[in-house]
Amino acid sequence: MLLKNTNCGTITKANVGQSVVLNGWVQGWRDFGGILFIDLRDRTGIVQVVFNPAFSGQALDIASRARNEYVLSVKGNVVERDPDTYNANLETGEIEIQALEVEVINAAKTPPFPIEDGVEVDESLRLKYRYLDLRRPEMQKTLLLRSKATKVFRDFLDENGFIDVETPILTLSTPEGARDYLVPSRVHPGEFFALPQSPQLFKQLLMIGGLERYYQVARCFRDEDLRADRQPEFTQVDIETSFLSQEQLLSMMEELMARLFRETIGVEIPTPFQRLTYHDAIHKYGSDKPDLRFGLEIEDVTDIVKGSDVKVFASVAASGGVVKALNAKGCASWSRKELDDLQPFAARYGGKGIAWITVKEGKWNGPIVKFFKPEEIEALTKRLNVEEGDLLTFSADKLKTAADVMGNLRQKVGRDLGLIDHKAYKFLWVVDFPLLGWDEEGKRFVAEHHPFTRPSDADLPLFDSDPGAIRAQAYDIVLNGYEVGGGSMRIYRRDVQEKMFQALGFSEEEAKEKFGFFLDAFDYGTPPHGGIAFGLDRLVMLLTGRTNLRETIAFPKTASATDLLSDAPSQVTERQLDDLHIRLSAKAVAAQAKSAGAATPEPAVAPSQG
Amino acid sequence: MLLKNTNCGTITKANVGQSVVLNGWVQGWRDFGGILFIDLRDRTGIVQVVFNPAFSGQALDIASRARNEYVLSVKGNVVERDPDTYNANLETGEIEIQALEVEVINAAKTPPFPIEDGVEVDESLRLKYRYLDLRRPEMQKTLLLRSKATKVFRDFLDENGFIDVETPILTLSTPEGARDYLVPSRVHPGEFFALPQSPQLFKQLLMIGGLERYYQVARCFRDEDLRADRQPEFTQVDIETSFLSQEQLLSMMEELMARLFRETIGVEIPTPFQRLTYHDAIHKYGSDKPDLRFGLEIEDVTDIVKGSDVKVFASVAASGGVVKALNAKGCASWSRKELDDLQPFAARYGGKGIAWITVKEGKWNGPIVKFFKPEEIEALTKRLNVEEGDLLTFSADKLKTAADVMGNLRQKVGRDLGLIDHKAYKFLWVVDFPLLGWDEEGKRFVAEHHPFTRPSDADLPLFDSDPGAIRAQAYDIVLNGYEVGGGSMRIYRRDVQEKMFQALGFSEEEAKEKFGFFLDAFDYGTPPHGGIAFGLDRLVMLLTGRTNLRETIAFPKTASATDLLSDAPSQVTERQLDDLHIRLSAKAVAAQAKSAGAATPEPAVAPSQG
Repeated sequence: MLLKNTNCGTITKANVGQSVVLNGWVQGWRDFGGILFIDLRDRTGIVQVVFNPAFSGQALDIASRARNEYVLSVKGNVVERDPDTYNANLETGEIEIQALEVEVINAAKTPPFPIEDGVEVDESLRLKYRYLDLRRPEMQKTLLLRSKATKVFRDFLDENGFIDVETPILTLSTPEGARDYLVPSRVHPGEFFALPQSPQLFKQLLMIGGLERYYQVARCFRDEDLRADRQPEFTQVDIETSFLSQEQLLSMMEELMARLFRETIGVEIPTPFQRLTYHDAIHKYGSDKPDLRFGLEIEDVTDIVKGSDVKVFASVAASGGVVKALNAKGCASWSRKELDDLQPFAARYGGKGIAWITVKEGKWNGPIVKFFKPEEIEALTKRLNVEEGDLLTFSADKLKTAADVMGNLRQKVGRDLGLIDHKAYKFLWVVDFPLLGWDEEGKRFVAEHHPFTRPSDADLPLFDSDPGAIRAQAYDIVLNGYEVGGGSMRIYRRDVQEKMFQALGFSEEEAKEKFGFFLDAFDYGTPPHGGIAFGLDRLVMLLTGRTNLRETIAFPKTASATDLLSDAPSQVTERQLDDLHIRLSAKAVAAQAKSAGAATPEPAVAPSQG
Repeated sequence: MLLKNTNCGTITKANVGQSVVLNGWVQGWRDFGGILFIDLRDRTGIVQVVFNPAFSGQALDIASRARNEYVLSVKGNVVERDPDTYNANLETGEIEIQALEVEVINAAKTPPFPIEDGVEVDESLRLKYRYLDLRRPEMQKTLLLRSKATKVFRDFLDENGFIDVETPILTLSTPEGARDYLVPSRVHPGEFFALPQSPQLFKQLLMIGGLERYYQVARCFRDEDLRADRQPEFTQVDIETSFLSQEQLLSMMEELMARLFRETIGVEIPTPFQRLTYHDAIHKYGSDKPDLRFGLEIEDVTDIVKGSDVKVFASVAASGGVVKALNAKGCASWSRKELDDLQPFAARYGGKGIAWITVKEGKWNGPIVKFFKPEEIEALTKRLNVEEGDLLTFSADKLKTAADVMGNLRQKVGRDLGLIDHKAYKFLWVVDFPLLGWDEEGKRFVAEHHPFTRPSDADLPLFDSDPGAIRAQAYDIVLNGYEVGGGSMRIYRRDVQEKMFQALGFSEEEAKEKFGFFLDAFDYGTPPHGGIAFGLDRLVMLLTGRTNLRETIAFPKTASATDLLSDAPSQVTERQLDDLHIRLSAKAVAAQAKSAGAATPEPAVAPSQG
C-alpha cells in the first residue's frame, strides 16, 4: 500500500514540482470528456486530483470506479493550475495533483447524508452514523479545537505548578445533591459504587494531603432529566489550590482564560475581568449570569412607586417585595400584540405580569399612567432616563421573581434591538454569593454552594444574628450570559465548620453521619484552600460558536440519555445480573417484555447488541 | 493571614538576606534551652525555622504551642547557618529562617503514623488515612512524576498531530471479554450502561470518522478478581492512527518511550528497540514478556533427546511435545534441598517436574545421567555450552507448559545469581503474535487479541489451509519483564473480515448479532488503521521503582475492590434502587442484614456514609 507522505489540505504553490503520496476520501468526482477530477479529502482539507490519459495511464481506469467516500491512495505531482481555474474556496485552490498511480484502499456505500458542513439532516440520523458525521469539516474543527483548548488549560496549569491527579470514577454515593449513577458491586453483595458528580471531596483531600495545587480534566456524571445544554456525562477542568487568596486565584484564572482565547481562536481578552457582586447582578441585570455584551440596566423603583396609586406596586412594596423597571429604549413602537405578549412572557418566569408605558410625542401612554402622580413621573423620568420613543416596563414581585422576569426581558430586548455584539466575549466574575438559602419547605437554611464553602471573614459575626445575610467566598465566571465555571474558598477551620453546621441545623452526630471520613480529615492540619471548575463542554461550545453541547462531544447522548450509535443502554444477561446480586423490578421486567414484542420506540436506533 | 511568597524546599544560600513568608506543616520541633527549631514542610521539601527570643519576640511563644502537622505561616529572614551545623540531608541544609512572625493557621491531632518515607505501617491504615499518607515525600514524588509522565505523553502526541478525544464512560455492555461494570438506566427501565474495558470500538470509529490520529488518557474498568497488579479502574494511554504502517507506528512509539524516560527520570533509552517474534520469545525465554536485562537463553533439545533412554523425554517428543533445557551456569553447587525444590517449582506452573544434572569435577551427576548415550552427552554439551560447575535443567511437556516452567526458572536463576542489572531499562517489542488460538473446550478458534486484529499479509492464504499458523499484526511492548503496552493493526477490508469470522466459526448473522453497528461502520470507507495502549499505572510503577500499582494511584482500591478511605462501595437507599428499577437479590439482602447486625468485616474501615 502507498502510504501518505503529506496532507491533502496543506499543499500550496510552494510545493509545485514535488511528488506526493496522498491518502484520503473521495469528496466528489467529475468526468470531463475522459479527464477525471477527484476531490480528495483528509483531516486537513481537500485537494483536486486530475486523472488524464496523457499522464495517468492505468490509474485513470482504476480511479474512474471510485465513488464518494471511497478511500484512495494517490501518487502524483503537484502542478500549478491555470490561473483562470484557481478555486478561491479551497486552501489548495491554486494547485492540483497530476495522478500517476492510484490504489482503491477501500470502497464505500453511499452515505446517508452528504459529508459537508451545514447539512440539513435530522440530528438522530447524524448521531446514529456519528462516524460519518465526524468526517464533516465543522465537526473535525470542533474536536480539534477541543483538543487544543484542553491542551492550553493543561499547559497553563502545568506551568503554574498544578499537578494533574486522577481521582476515582468508582466512588461513594452521597445522598445529597443531584441523583447519582450507581454501579452494583459484585464483590460486596447489596453495595454500590456511585459515579462522581464532581471530584469535590477528593480534590479537597488532595489539599489536606499537601499536594498544594491540583487539576484534572475530570469526567463527571449526573443522572438528571436532561435539558438541551446538559449531558449525563460531562467534563470539567477541576482546579484546587492551597495558600492562595480568592483574589490571587481569580486573577490567575483570568490569565488562563485570556490564554485560552488567544491560543485557540486568536481573540484577546482584556484582564482584569469585571467583578460584580451577586447582589448587583441580580438587581441590575436580573440574573446571576448576566450577558454584559450590552448595557440596558434594570432599575429599582420601589422607593418611587411604593406610595403610588398603582395598587399592585404599593401592595408589593408594602409586603417586602420590589418594583423593578426596565427602559426598553426606542421600543414605544411595539405593536399591541407585542405588548400583550409581555403577560405570558412574565408568566413563563413565574411573574404575574409586566406593566408598561410607551413614550410617544412627549406623552406617557398605557393603562397605569393615570395612577401616577406628577412627582412620581418626574422621579421615574430621571431614574429611568426616559426619552421620546421609550418603552418603560415594570415587574412588581418578590425580588427573585421580579429579577427573573426583568432579566429575561432585558435579554429579549437586547436581542430584538440588536444590542448584542456577537463577536464580543464579555467575561465577568460574579462574587459574594449568599452562603445560605432559606428552604421554605423544610423551614431551614441550606448551603447555596456546599456545606464546606467558606463564609466571608467580615460576615462571621452574622452567624449569630442574621445567617441569611452571610456572603460566601464563592464565585462564578460568566461569559456572554453563560456560567462557564464556578467555585469557592473552602472552610478549613473546625470552629467555622461548626458554626456552619449549626446554621444548617445539623447536630454534631448528624454532621458526622453525613460527612464522616471527610470531617475526620479536617482534624489533621487542613490548609486554607479553594478552587474552581470550568465546564469544558460549554466553553468549547462558546469558542466554536455552537449552540448545542452535543456538537462539542465526539459521542454524545440524546436528551433521553441514549447513545444512538451503539444503542446503549441495553438489556443484559441474567448471568450478569446474578453476578451483581440484583434483579429487575416488576416495572423493568414489564418494559422488557414490551420492547421484546414491539419495535423499539426510539427514532433511528441501531440494532440491539444484547 | 500571611500567604506564602516562596517554597520551603527551594531556599538556598542564594536567598540569604531575603525576607520570606512560608506556609507549611510542622515536620518536627526541638527546644534547645529556650531556642525553638521547627522543621517546616511543604510539597517542595523541608526548611529549618529558628525562633529565638533575640529576634522572634512573641512569635516564639506562639510557635512553642505548635506540634507535628500543625499548619503554620512564618515570616522571617533567610540566614546562612554556621558551617558546622550544615545539614547535608536537606536541600536547604546550608540556611535557616530566623522567624519574625508566626501564625498557627490550623492545629492537628497526632497522626496515626509518622509523615516520612519508608514508614513501617499496615497498608490498610495508610489507605484509610490516605490524605496523610499523601503528605509523605515518596508519595508526593510519585504523584508528581505521574503528572509529569502524562504530560510527556501528551506533549509528544500533540506534537505528532494526535487529537485528544474523550470517549464515553457510559457505554454499551459487550458480552465478550472480561466482566463489565454495569450502570442501571433510570430512563430506560431494565436497561444498563457498561463502563468501558477500553475505548477500543470508539477509537476505531474515530479512525473511520477521519480523525486520523487520536489519543486519550483513558480510564478503563474491569470487574475481575484482583491480583496484586490489577485495579478495578486503571488508566491507559490509548492511541490510534490511520495511514501508518506497523513499523512506522512502532518506531514512533519508541521515540515516545525514549522521551518519556529522558524527561521524567533522565535515563537515555537507546532506539530502535529489539524486536522478538512471539515464537522466539516463547522458545528462547519461555515468556511473551521476557526480562532481557540478562541472557540465560533456554534451548530446545528435543532433537537430541528424542531417542534417549530417558523415557519421559522420548515419550513427550513422540507425542508432539518439546524438551526445553536451561543451563544454570555455576549452579552445580545447589544443595540437595534446592534441587528437590525444583519439583514443586515446576508444579506451580503446571509442569510435571524438572530433571537436572550437575557438572562437578568433570563429571555429570544426577538421576537421569545414566540413561544418556555418549553422543547425546556430546550434543548436549555443545548445545548447552556445558562447563564445569553448571546445573543443567530440563522440562519435557507441551510447548506452553515447558516454556512456562523454564521461563520462570530462568527468571529465578537470573535473580538468584544476581544477573539482573536493576538500573537497566530493557525495552523490546514482541511481534508476530498468533492471530488465533485453539479453544480446546469449544473445539474452535478464538481471537487471541480481538476479532478485528489484522492478519499478516503474507499469511492470508493460511486461512484456507492452517488458520492456527496465521501471524497477527499485533505487538506488545515489554520492559524488564513487564508488558507495558500492546496493540495491533486492525482489519479494514470486508473480505479479510469475512475470512476472520469464518475462521472463528461465525455465520454472517452471528457476526451481525455480535458486532452490529460497528460492522455497519466498516461499509463506509474504512481507512487502514491500528493502534496501541500503554498501561500508565504500570509505567509509573516502573519509572518510580515501586512494586505495587497502588503506590502510583492517589486513591486506589484494595484487592477486594474497596476504597478504605470513603468505605465505598456502600449500601444505598430503597428510593435510589426504585429510581433505577432494580432490587437486591436474596443473597444481597441477607448480606445486608448480616452487616447491619455485625461489626463490618473489612480491616481498618472508615464509618459508613450510608
